[in-house]
Amino acid sequence: MSKNSPIGIFDSGLGGLTVAKQIVKLLPREDIIYLGDTARVPYGPRSPEIIKRFSEENTQFLISKKVKCIVIACNTSSAVASDYLKRKFRKTPIFEVINPAAKEATGMGNKIGVIGTRATIASHAYEKDINKYSKSAKVISLACPLFVPFIEEGEIKSDGLKEVAREYLTKLKIKKIDTLVMGCTHYPIIGKLIAREVDNHVRIVDPGKSVAKEVFDFLSKNKMLNEQKTSGKKNFFVTDLTERFTKVAEMFLGQKIKGKILEVNL
Amino acid sequence: MSKNSPIGIFDSGLGGLTVAKQIVKLLPREDIIYLGDTARVPYGPRSPEIIKRFSEENTQFLISKKVKCIVIACNTSSAVASDYLKRKFRKTPIFEVINPAAKEATGMGNKIGVIGTRATIASHAYEKDINKYSKSAKVISLACPLFVPFIEEGEIKSDGLKEVAREYLTKLKIKKIDTLVMGCTHYPIIGKLIAREVDNHVRIVDPGKSVAKEVFDFLSKNKMLNEQKTSGKKNFFVTDLTERFTKVAEMFLGQKIKGKILEVNL
Repeated sequence: MSKNSPIGIFDSGLGGLTVAKQIVKLLPREDIIYLGDTARVPYGPRSPEIIKRFSEENTQFLISKKVKCIVIACNTSSAVASDYLKRKFRKTPIFEVINPAAKEATGMGNKIGVIGTRATIASHAYEKDINKYSKSAKVISLACPLFVPFIEEGEIKSDGLKEVAREYLTKLKIKKIDTLVMGCTHYPIIGKLIAREVDNHVRIVDPGKSVAKEVFDFLSKNKMLNEQKTSGKKNFFVTDLTERFTKVAEMFLGQKIKGKILEVNL
Repeated sequence: MSKNSPIGIFDSGLGGLTVAKQIVKLLPREDIIYLGDTARVPYGPRSPEIIKRFSEENTQFLISKKVKCIVIACNTSSAVASDYLKRKFRKTPIFEVINPAAKEATGMGNKIGVIGTRATIASHAYEKDINKYSKSAKVISLACPLFVPFIEEGEIKSDGLKEVAREYLTKLKIKKIDTLVMGCTHYPIIGKLIAREVDNHVRIVDPGKSVAKEVFDFLSKNKMLNEQKTSGKKNFFVTDLTERFTKVAEMFLGQKIKGKILEVNL
């Protein structure tokens, strides 16, 4: 691999495209290979063992594509499998979303709410990383497992979602948090609704933005930035290609997907 | 295999336990082997190709356990993969939930609503089977993809679910259906809420009950009923065993699970 090799990004499904979007914004000349494990999405309700196994298969696929580094876009994989993957694949730099988001959150506030999937919250990964950077920060974590299905369905303005958001987020609002980490790649899609329900003055951390900065710093420092003159090529792979795929994917990515999306069998 | 061999039941996850419950009720002396593909649940939003592949792996597992017949409890698998599986595994009698439910519905009414997952509704399997039994029956189908996540989360009394149910089912109510097929194994869990939203006079078909009768008839007719004096043994296999498993599984099955639940790698 060289500086002109692509950046590999994987996610349990499409949510990671919100992370890809931030990386493309900050690093427009980089080639990107994105893998969404849409045949087995969601990872959030599954056991740590199976999340590790699926994440390892995703990593192996990206390594076979000769990427120069890997970004685990999925918070659940980051929380549960990133240490395991870093130990297993020592030759490839692996980034995950939790550490950079935790670091950013501690620079913003001291009473930090974290929302995510069941597996992410149960792992306590955010608490651990936040307390690495700030001993005094108080962390209040909350699993919001129903946000993902609503967003995957494109039901982002429905009354049902508003009701669910109110039921979940009131629990954080009454604790008077000053900062909130959106600890799942899907949540930026409903960022405004979330902000409204926890109070508009709460500072919001989007881990996609945090990790994009970290990748940028790493590539700059190690002289691994792609110096091509044109904007980078984006290649999308999924493990299950459904009819609705492109529509939902473009909502996440925030732009049209050019070219063919390829299906792979992991 | 002999008359004392177990009945195999598979499902994308836990929902099929509502079908297992009906089979156990009607055939208490039968041994049961249940396989829930919890590592890859839900099947509803996935493509027909991947649903066929997963269903084939489930079938192969049950055949390796020497079952005397197989019940596809999952409506999505039944709709998309049952013809494929019957062609592929000719030696084992395979039952699916759609045909018996369609037959039952045509005996009950003439303006039949069908609710199910995206894949089930997109397959038009219920329409096709209903029109086999009644040329005059009018079928109104509706995908209700958010019911499954609410039920899997155990959020069956939440205001969010009530809001979602109202949004979906008003579409059937205004069409004045006289019969409703609950075309997903999860739905009997919220049967009362569904009945209320479509009007209490609408007759409800539970495909789990329909297929249980069909299996009973088949085994009786072919002298394949298990004649042991005690109630049958139940063995549960899953592809991912999470901490919450037993709690949710018992809600679906309607009774305590005795013995160990085994994890298998498909």
